[in-house]
Amino acid sequence: MNKDYIFQLEMNVRDYECDIQGIVNNANYLHYLEHTRHQFLLTEGISFIKLHDQGIDCVVARITVSFKTPLRSDDAFLSCLNLRKEGVRYVFEQDIYRKADHQLCIRAKVDTVCIVHGKLAECQELNEAFGKYF
Amino acid sequence: MNKDYIFQLEMNVRDYECDIQGIVNNANYLHYLEHTRHQFLLTEGISFIKLHDQGIDCVVARITVSFKTPLRSDDAFLSCLNLRKEGVRYVFEQDIYRKADHQLCIRAKVDTVCIVHGKLAECQELNEAFGKYF
Amino acid sequence: MNKDYIFQLEMNVRDYECDIQGIVNNANYLHYLEHTRHQFLLTEGISFIKLHDQGIDCVVARITVSFKTPLRSDDAFLSCLNLRKEGVRYVFEQDIYRKADHQLCIRAKVDTVCIVHGKLAECQELNEAFGKYF
Amino acid sequence: MNKDYIFQLEMNVRDYECDIQGIVNNANYLHYLEHTRHQFLLTEGISFIKLHDQGIDCVVARITVSFKTPLRSDDAFLSCLNLRKEGVRYVFEQDIYRKADHQLCIRAKVDTVCIVHGKLAECQELNEAFGKYF
Repeated sequence: MNKDYIFQLEMNVRDYECDIQGIVNNANYLHYLEHTRHQFLLTEGISFIKLHDQGIDCVVARITVSFKTPLRSDDAFLSCLNLRKEGVRYVFEQDIYRKADHQLCIRAKVDTVCIVHGKLAECQELNEAFGKYF
Repeated sequence: MNKDYIFQLEMNVRDYECDIQGIVNNANYLHYLEHTRHQFLLTEGISFIKLHDQGIDCVVARITVSFKTPLRSDDAFLSCLNLRKEGVRYVFEQDIYRKADHQLCIRAKVDTVCIVHGKLAECQELNEAFGKYF
Repeated sequence: MNKDYIFQLEMNVRDYECDIQGIVNNANYLHYLEHTRHQFLLTEGISFIKLHDQGIDCVVARITVSFKTPLRSDDAFLSCLNLRKEGVRYVFEQDIYRKADHQLCIRAKVDTVCIVHGKLAECQELNEAFGKYF
Repeated sequence: MNKDYIFQLEMNVRDYECDIQGIVNNANYLHYLEHTRHQFLLTEGISFIKLHDQGIDCVVARITVSFKTPLRSDDAFLSCLNLRKEGVRYVFEQDIYRKADHQLCIRAKVDTVCIVHGKLAECQELNEAFGKYF
């Protein structure tokens, strides 16, 4: 974990997230990543849900995940995030580390865009809140 | 849908898979992709679970998903799959189309590997079953 | 399966629905039950989502589930449903059977009510559609 | 919340747990309840997974849930638990309260039993760990 992140969230594996192989099912990592982004938004004063109610939907355009070390039942983990802007896209670099030994579990790149009243557009609220990170 | 696939599965969106935005939550597409792969394996006479019981675990090493058109409540969709081998990796190209108009919903590339008794290895069963596709 | 039902849906266990014990995780049965009810509604010409868009939300008030025989990976199952009215409640009796041997897997009673524009109320659409079953 | 509990866990709603109605989907409450029981076990020195590895599976035999007030996006909640023994059953009384105003969200009764090497049986480990609560 020799990298700096602008946001970090500690979470615990829940047993129902593990599958027959005894490891967290792949799809659940997308849940972890989404929850981390939304919690990051909240710390910046932005609610994903309130944006939605205003007609602004942040959606994932593209996601790439490399699975390195599987998380298992009872593992605690650190879900870390960086952010940059590429054109109209907000690109989240999201890494998850097992807490016990800081082993890298997954490395993800999540490209998101804003749909404002049904059209791809810049989102003023996000640009203002995140400007300091670009 | 001007592409040929070696396997195709029809599925329906279930309402609980949709989130507040009224569209299928991203993580559920990974569920669709996994279920499609496992059903493909079954048609080839291979059970993911029985492999696991023999000490062979097929795991996802890397996944890339481009989200094009969101699926919504009550949508039927076609989950399509191609397969090739790259070194030790089984690479699944998986595309999902809305059934009503064959609109591309997601395009995914899923790299999987086999862990045989805890070690990355070639899997005889899979190589024999899939040889015809390489 | 010596009982008659007004609606029956065949489904398959998906591997991601199974947990470390190798059996379908309890919470997923609630998903099966919900999907069955919504598919039943659709056959009656009623869309859960369109009702929601009209300001009518069908919500579960109470659920009782007895777990008899666990479903496992690759199992097909029959999700069966009866309906009666008790006051303002629509009471669904929902049973799930393993397809292979008609073994009872779960027996559930699901009490639902309608919230019309924020208030508990009778729902004209449902009463008309379901009247024949009461 | 004028009741005493032997265990209490604070959790937050994750946005992906909410459905089109904007409220936590029913099935997710079973996830909350399970995670609470397993965390309770851990505080008593018992790992659900390690039990499984020893051939002891705790399974839910019956569950009753009354849904009172729906949880929504961004809500924090308290998941509370009491335990008693009824014959071979461990009966968990589990209530979930919205943290902000201690409003009761769900009231649940979860009957669990132990399957030891495939047979319904008393579980020495659990009886010793929980004896003080009976």
